[in-house]
Formats: sequence, C-alpha cells, structure tokens
Amino acid sequence: MLFFTQCFGAVLDLIHLRFQHYKAKRVFSAAGQLVCVVNPTHSLKYAPTRCAGAQTSTEQGVIPPCHYHESVHDPQLVACTCPLFSCPWEGHLEVVVSHLRQTHRINILQGAEIVFLATDMHLPAPMDWIIMHSCLGHQFLLVLRKQEKYEGHPQFFATMMLIGTPTQADNFTYRLELNRNQRRLKWEATPRSVLECVDSVISDGDCLVLNTSLAQLFSDNGSLAIGIAITTSKVHGAEAEM
Amino acid sequence: MLFFTQCFGAVLDLIHLRFQHYKAKRVFSAAGQLVCVVNPTHSLKYAPTRCAGAQTSTEQGVIPPCHYHESVHDPQLVACTCPLFSCPWEGHLEVVVSHLRQTHRINILQGAEIVFLATDMHLPAPMDWIIMHSCLGHQFLLVLRKQEKYEGHPQFFATMMLIGTPTQADNFTYRLELNRNQRRLKWEATPRSVLECVDSVISDGDCLVLNTSLAQLFSDNGSLAIGIAITTSKVHGAEAEM
Repeated sequence: MLFFTQCFGAVLDLIHLRFQHYKAKRVFSAAGQLVCVVNPTHSLKYAPTRCAGAQTSTEQGVIPPCHYHESVHDPQLVACTCPLFSCPWEGHLEVVVSHLRQTHRINILQGAEIVFLATDMHLPAPMDWIIMHSCLGHQFLLVLRKQEKYEGHPQFFATMMLIGTPTQADNFTYRLELNRNQRRLKWEATPRSVLECVDSVISDGDCLVLNTSLAQLFSDNGSLAIGIAITTSKVHGAEAEM
Repeated sequence: MLFFTQCFGAVLDLIHLRFQHYKAKRVFSAAGQLVCVVNPTHSLKYAPTRCAGAQTSTEQGVIPPCHYHESVHDPQLVACTCPLFSCPWEGHLEVVVSHLRQTHRINILQGAEIVFLATDMHLPAPMDWIIMHSCLGHQFLLVLRKQEKYEGHPQFFATMMLIGTPTQADNFTYRLELNRNQRRLKWEATPRSVLECVDSVISDGDCLVLNTSLAQLFSDNGSLAIGIAITTSKVHGAEAEM
C-alpha cells in the first residue's frame, strides 16, 4: 500500500513538473526564448558587515546603510557581490562568477534574450530572486528584490549589474520588459558595475520599480515573467531617436 | 533711462522665450513631434464632494476616498471628469470636452504623437499637469499627478483616459515614454474611460509610476518630457509577440 502511495506521489510530481514546464513555455512560446524559473530566497541582509557603495538616499529604509569594506584597498578586489547573504568573501572581479556559482549556487544562463520567471511573488518581503546572465562575452547579475521601503507597502525592484568595471558597464544597455493583461512596461538603462552596491541602486530607485498592484497585474498565478535583453549601447543614437 | 531699461527687459524676455522654445525643440527635434509645454496646477482635490469610482485601495492616501455622485443615474451622464477642481458640473459625455476647455481652460492638442513637457516638477505635492489629446477621432485626457501616497515621499503618476465609454476605450492603446540620461521607460496600456475615476486609477497604481529620483533623472532643468502615442489596440497580437 505504501509502495502504491509513493508511486502515485511520484506520478503526481511528474505531472506537476510537466505542467509547470508547459506553463513557462506557454507564456513565451511565440518568441522561442529561454525561460529560466527562479525561486525566491529570503534576503538575509540585516547583518551590517558587508556590501559596497556610499548610502546617499535619505529614504527611511529597513535595510541598514551600505559601506565599503574597510579592508578593500585594491580597487579590483571586491567584496562578495552576491546581494543574498552576509558574505565575508572578497576576491578579484575575475573570480566573482565562480564564487557566486559555487558558494551561493546562483544559476547562469546563456543567450541574448532570456525570460526570468520569478515564482512565489506573494511571499513576504524581504525576498530576492537572482540569476546570472552570460551574454556578449560578459556576465551580468539580475536582481529582483521585494522590499518594504515604506512599512506595510512592499515594492519590487529589478536591476542588472555587470560583473566587470564601471567603464566596461558603460558599453552595454539592458532591457527589462513586462507584458501581460494589456499592459506593457519596459525599462532600459546602462547596467551598473558590481563594484557599486546593488543596495544603493535599489534604495535610490534607479531601476525598474513596481508597486504590489502592478506586480499582480503582470503576474500569472504568482509568477512574474521578465523579458531580459542585453545589447551593446548606442547611447547617443537612442537619445537623438526620440 | 527708464525707456531703455524697459526696452532691454523686453529684449531679454524675447531672448528667454526663444531659448525656451529652442530647448523644447532641441529635445525632440529629431522626430519633429509636437511639443506641448504644460504648467502645473495645484490640485484642489480635498473637497469630498466630487469624483467617480469605488475606492478599493487600502493605501494610506492623503486624498479622500472617491465615490460615485449619488445623483448620477443615467450612465451617460457623468460628473465633471476634470480631476483638478471640486467641480459640481455634470453632463453627457459629448459635452465633457467643451466643459473642460471652457471652464477649466485645459488645452487640446491634435496629432498621433505628441510630447508633453511638464514644467516645474520640483513644486510640492499635490500638483497636476493636464492636457487633452485629440487623436484617431477621439479625445483623451492625460493626467500627470505629483502626490504623496507615503508622507514625505512624493511620487509621480501618469495615466491617459478616453473621454468616452469603457467599451470605446478598449479599442485603443496609449504609450507614455521617458527617455533621458541613458535610461528609457515605456508604459503601454489600454486607456480607462473618464466614466471611471482618475483618482482610483492613480491610487491603485495602475499607471506609469515614478519616484522622485527617477523623475529627476528623466527631467531636464525641472521639466519632464513625456512622449505620448495612441494607437488602435491589437491586444492579442501584442501579448503573443513577447
């Protein structure tokens, strides 16, 4: 009897997995894009020991101010750029990717255009959804964060950072696109370098910002699909175009 | 001497005007779009006597709840749709445009694509920037509002409404686009009907939302340029496209 129950459970799991896969494919099947399902991780950012960048925002954030690691003197030697944990790791830019993959198990995806499917958007803040994106010979870090800047009013912040220097970052443009329920929201910007702090970018609001009701409108069954594209930037062309 | 001073003042004024015109043209000269300079009006919305729509938001707004005019029974007879004043006027949809023009002096612009240049973005909330846009045989109302949903943290909300019924509104898509400082933000949606309440749209956050820092990044010398385009909607095509 136990054997039958276990078999039945396994079959149900398979059906569920197949259904999830079908759902993900259904959303973006037309473009044939790579869909990456990203599960949330509780953001354990309350330890005051890590993270780079000066805090300029005066907003009443729940997240503590961000400071440069005092021990960092070599500008190429960076504190761990993973915004998930209070991580004491420091290393050169070249090994940040392998650190993020090995220590923090962050997935890396290849492709010019991918779809980031963040699950369980209803879970309480603070929460992070993170992947790395390998494209045009570089690696980028996409961070979606649910955070309460104003108590009781969670918002979603999405940004993309280059695992490289600010000068390298200036050569790219990233685009985040939401498209559902007869609404479309596109954000295009130059990625910041991971040498800057992801917390400052988010607390300054210089990223894609969604309130809860917009996030719900763009979500399908608790999952938010964000289309991501990275191009080499033609800043002056884009500004003259409009 | 007084004559010379006055002449000099007049010449300076002319130079200033010419410079302002040049600036407006400079921003969007490439596309040859019509630029409309829109000055802010202090939002006098605190009188609890007007406006349509049920209040569903639980957010701690400074603006009082919105209620349907109790005297409105004919669904075509609407309370004044101008969100500026506590206006006791009611009228059929057909005469809303002339009411808005004559009583509230709201400008109307023609053209498929226009640029809405909102001045004096630094002025304290609550503040409204409003124009009407005549396009594809219909009139639309564009509302940009600066409002403090959370005390001390003003945000900007922009939405477009059709001066027509919800069924008519479903036939259109509007696009608002900001483009400056290597950032681009696009919002596309179906316009709401003015029979719904602009306050509910804004308090629900179902519109383009900008925090102060983003608004500053997109502003040039205190003015925010919003590119506006209206098309007949092809909703299913757009959703399948992504």
